[in-house]
Amino acid sequence: MATPVRKSSSYRETYSSSCFLHPLDPLTTEEVELAAKLIREHAGPKKFKFNCITLKEPLKSEYLEFCANNNRVPPRKAYAILVMKDTSSVIQCVVSLTHNMGEVVSWEHIPDVVPMLTPEDCSFIEDIARSDETFTKACNDLGITDMSTVCIDAWSIGHDPRWGRDRHLQQGLVYWRPPPAGNQYAHPLDFYIVVDTQTREILSIDTFDCEGGERGKVPPICHNYRKELLPNMSRVNRLKPIEISQPEGVSFQLTGNRILWAGISMHIGFNYREGIVLSDIRIQDQTEHKERTVFYRISLAEMVVPYAHPGFPLNRRHAFDVGEYGLGFSTNSLKLGCDCKGSIRYLDGVLPTSEGSTSTIKNAICIHEEDNGILFKHSEPRDQSTVLCRDRKLVISQIVTVGNYEYALYHNFTLDGTYEFKVKLTGILNTSNSKETMPRYGTKVSDSVVAHNHQHIFSLRVDPAIDGPNNSVSQCDAVAGTVSPTTQADPLGNAFHSQTTILKEAQGVDYCHASSRTWDIINPNNINPTSGMPVSYKIVNNQCPALLARPGSIIAERAAFARHSLWVVPYRDGELFPAGRFVPQSGGKGMNPHNNGVTDWVDDKGCIEGTDIVCYIQFGVTHFPRPEDFPIMPAEDVSVVLRANHFFSSNPALWVPQSSN
Amino acid sequence: MATPVRKSSSYRETYSSSCFLHPLDPLTTEEVELAAKLIREHAGPKKFKFNCITLKEPLKSEYLEFCANNNRVPPRKAYAILVMKDTSSVIQCVVSLTHNMGEVVSWEHIPDVVPMLTPEDCSFIEDIARSDETFTKACNDLGITDMSTVCIDAWSIGHDPRWGRDRHLQQGLVYWRPPPAGNQYAHPLDFYIVVDTQTREILSIDTFDCEGGERGKVPPICHNYRKELLPNMSRVNRLKPIEISQPEGVSFQLTGNRILWAGISMHIGFNYREGIVLSDIRIQDQTEHKERTVFYRISLAEMVVPYAHPGFPLNRRHAFDVGEYGLGFSTNSLKLGCDCKGSIRYLDGVLPTSEGSTSTIKNAICIHEEDNGILFKHSEPRDQSTVLCRDRKLVISQIVTVGNYEYALYHNFTLDGTYEFKVKLTGILNTSNSKETMPRYGTKVSDSVVAHNHQHIFSLRVDPAIDGPNNSVSQCDAVAGTVSPTTQADPLGNAFHSQTTILKEAQGVDYCHASSRTWDIINPNNINPTSGMPVSYKIVNNQCPALLARPGSIIAERAAFARHSLWVVPYRDGELFPAGRFVPQSGGKGMNPHNNGVTDWVDDKGCIEGTDIVCYIQFGVTHFPRPEDFPIMPAEDVSVVLRANHFFSSNPALWVPQSSN
Repeated sequence: MATPVRKSSSYRETYSSSCFLHPLDPLTTEEVELAAKLIREHAGPKKFKFNCITLKEPLKSEYLEFCANNNRVPPRKAYAILVMKDTSSVIQCVVSLTHNMGEVVSWEHIPDVVPMLTPEDCSFIEDIARSDETFTKACNDLGITDMSTVCIDAWSIGHDPRWGRDRHLQQGLVYWRPPPAGNQYAHPLDFYIVVDTQTREILSIDTFDCEGGERGKVPPICHNYRKELLPNMSRVNRLKPIEISQPEGVSFQLTGNRILWAGISMHIGFNYREGIVLSDIRIQDQTEHKERTVFYRISLAEMVVPYAHPGFPLNRRHAFDVGEYGLGFSTNSLKLGCDCKGSIRYLDGVLPTSEGSTSTIKNAICIHEEDNGILFKHSEPRDQSTVLCRDRKLVISQIVTVGNYEYALYHNFTLDGTYEFKVKLTGILNTSNSKETMPRYGTKVSDSVVAHNHQHIFSLRVDPAIDGPNNSVSQCDAVAGTVSPTTQADPLGNAFHSQTTILKEAQGVDYCHASSRTWDIINPNNINPTSGMPVSYKIVNNQCPALLARPGSIIAERAAFARHSLWVVPYRDGELFPAGRFVPQSGGKGMNPHNNGVTDWVDDKGCIEGTDIVCYIQFGVTHFPRPEDFPIMPAEDVSVVLRANHFFSSNPALWVPQSSN
Repeated sequence: MATPVRKSSSYRETYSSSCFLHPLDPLTTEEVELAAKLIREHAGPKKFKFNCITLKEPLKSEYLEFCANNNRVPPRKAYAILVMKDTSSVIQCVVSLTHNMGEVVSWEHIPDVVPMLTPEDCSFIEDIARSDETFTKACNDLGITDMSTVCIDAWSIGHDPRWGRDRHLQQGLVYWRPPPAGNQYAHPLDFYIVVDTQTREILSIDTFDCEGGERGKVPPICHNYRKELLPNMSRVNRLKPIEISQPEGVSFQLTGNRILWAGISMHIGFNYREGIVLSDIRIQDQTEHKERTVFYRISLAEMVVPYAHPGFPLNRRHAFDVGEYGLGFSTNSLKLGCDCKGSIRYLDGVLPTSEGSTSTIKNAICIHEEDNGILFKHSEPRDQSTVLCRDRKLVISQIVTVGNYEYALYHNFTLDGTYEFKVKLTGILNTSNSKETMPRYGTKVSDSVVAHNHQHIFSLRVDPAIDGPNNSVSQCDAVAGTVSPTTQADPLGNAFHSQTTILKEAQGVDYCHASSRTWDIINPNNINPTSGMPVSYKIVNNQCPALLARPGSIIAERAAFARHSLWVVPYRDGELFPAGRFVPQSGGKGMNPHNNGVTDWVDDKGCIEGTDIVCYIQFGVTHFPRPEDFPIMPAEDVSVVLRANHFFSSNPALWVPQSSN
């Protein structure tokens, strides 16, 4: 575990609250403010707002040098995106905070892109609409006169060809919310609006075409979910408390943002876009008495939620909740006993504001242990003995709210060296005003309310370091039969084996159910002394629905990452976001050389064998809503697992204390 | 919830310990002994042993009558299988315990079948082999002279065409176990033996052909897993205790074998073969204020574990752990704090013996609650409010040891009405003596030790009662496109819908990954008032590997149930076991009209639409062993889920107390 280092003196004068920073630590408030000051000085009189200011992570080479020699501290740098006030043009820049007393080291105008909607960008639409005449008339026509009861959720526009990328667009989904604590999603109205994010003008009011030109009605039924509006049903079935405690404290040590638990160590970062970033994940090999690297960096790098209704403007809805809204920006402040139980440590999340300062989300990251049932067990009848170990999980989690939806994101590590990324999907269905009684593209969840079919496809970015950076991916298929399937070689027909194929060129590959396909991230130069096979971590990813949007459609282009279950590409500095760095109003493959995504990165068929590679793992669910999902959704799980596979020479958890009898 | 009934007076004189029996309660010791007495009287002087004596469950019609009117108590009956001492012929009989003061009501010789290996059947092989001259020589030839260090695991024969079904066969897998607490699976020897279960003769010693005729060596390396033989590594990483308690007690009420928890009620049965049987599962609908039936009966009805090595005699190995050994017979006695944590209630398991009495497994069934994380959450930024409920699980579980392997079997219910059957696979790999260094059909886990590839395919039998017995199955596929896929109808290409197909005739169907296929068990006559769709429970089963044994092979015939992910057949009394009632040495489809399995039951293409149906759900894993799985396997999970889908008119868990802030 790398020791934290004293920051260099060059920026000591600027701030002084935290004396030690790890190179991957998020920017402090002082660093953000220093970066903003330097950027403002560089920009001169031009007016702009900050879309983001975040850590410019050190290059991998710099970080690995630092690991080898803690005196080689990489420079601290900030990355910022600016939106110019007059032109809406977009600048990205990098500021060094520790060298030359601070300087802007790059300043680049990025043409034809639109940056993420910040919380501030999403905050004004309700106010401007409520005081707009045309909007008010659209509500009055439905019988709504108290405009304070009209709610609007700001969404990225998805796709609307009526305006170009010069305008930064957002759409508003309109609801009626009668009682103060009522559920507006029970009362969707029959139109969306389009707003220019920069000028704050309403550009269009789009009534649902699919309803045949006739206006809808305001859905009349209140479906509430808040305690104060529900009848007191808690006495129906009494649930007695379950108490979870760790009287001796937790089993992990947290030093700044670095954690050590059961021989597993890593750095926990956080940014406005990806939220939690886990870096430099290592495992202590108890047998070989050495620390081994496993993953260089893991984050939820993108996701897309395409909705299924083909009618305008409902068909615009396909949200990229990472690249369009930011998981960091959307993070909840967590509460002990509610979001998480047991002995918890929290980390706060520091987020940039448009003014160049920060806001803090208290308890943004939850770190805790959970009992995880049986780790292993065997009973030996010959002497009536039983060996049994209980497993436990280290859980590093955050919960995000993106409009109506909630995603609880769990990075789970277990004692056998397994890493699981699990998402619990909850929150409230995105509902639409509809007269349909048997909707083809959704489910009627209330009078005049339909929740449309949709998918959630996540992209987990895994930058592996299986015993070092040079890795390959071996595709593994369970295949029946022998080499020469003669009766003699396989008289009972029971033979099967794992057929492995090393992926050689950057590409996307698909899950195959028939062969129970998995992928091993191997280090071809490190052979397991027991099995003779290369050390590896296996990707187990069978919850990976196909993207259902039509090939060639704007959704399939913009969310091209979702077309395959796994992409493997060569590692290149700065390539982090599979749908491009600038996601709102993006085009797709080859549309903008300044805004490439994973489908562009495979174009040169770069070598991915025995070299530094990155994997993008797609997984998710296709959601056909049920009445049971309304007015609030019981959580649904989806996950992907990476587990040690020929990585250790034997069971790595034999050190875990046994509960034998 | 049906109230327990006073047993009828006709058999009161025979036993008196338990005053009330539910019609589905397992036979008591007194009932087993009464049955044995009646059977012995009926059999006259013929000598036999009991293979089983178990509850003959009431006919479904009888039970439903009892539910309608608790005075209509079905007769208590016992079902027994006998093996005649001289001829090894097999008798099955049914004894009424409550009518006519007890009588044998059926007595049937079943030709050409072999019953399950009981624990007693598996108990003598080691003793007879150790004192057998040829066997001793086979060990001596490997340098082993202390025969007390030789261990033999009794297995069902799998398939060996050298003997017919007149002989009841078993095979012995041979290991060397040097220190008293050592791990014999680290030292497999290079031969198996075949034994006649009835005559207790060794019929053959089968050296591994695949090793080219040369004898192996005794694998030299000790791989231990028991605490007393491991170096003290527990101080490497200190794990602080996690304490789970329910200071106010549990939230369920257990009345005899019936349980009520959070509005969910059921009967928990147990037998020698299926282990836990859940019956008459109902849910209190809080909105409609009525109790609704969901499932009539759920059990793990069969499983198969085929191994991949094609060489004799290794290719014989394909174990049916339900039908060949019995999950009840294999059940562990559980310990608080080891197998399960928290506030636990246990039920004992009463098992028949070959003498016609019983043995009791103390704490065979574990019943407890677990915190299950977030049930639902939504944060409303407009007023900074958060609504959050925590979920919990009711877990009804047992753990079985079958030779080297352990299966922990969990029936999980959650507050949203979801049922999950989860298996944790652990225990010890089945190992083989091998000189191979890069084995095609397995993994080298130690010097001269290979663990072969294998599959575990489970068959969960679900007899549904979605608002009553008359149900259908609707196959649901996620399908892209509109009805008329014109550009106009779907200009952005985002349309997709759920294409449903009602299954009409008894059949096996397969999972389809491309369409994220699921199956709804619907009640076509009960329409959800919210959605207009039939009420249903959805089968989510995507962990269902294809059976890799060659089509037409003996494994594919004997384990024909494993050829499809789902079978749906009409309900017929007495059809319970998809690989047949008598599994050892079975043939396959059409081989024995007295021993039909699910592939026979679909032959008549019986109607499965809007009628009483049964589903067999196949799921499991294909296991390519890793060094990490040795000397003891970290548990691997596999599960199948059935969840409410248009069953409730809205979220059924709104009554759960909220933790809002």
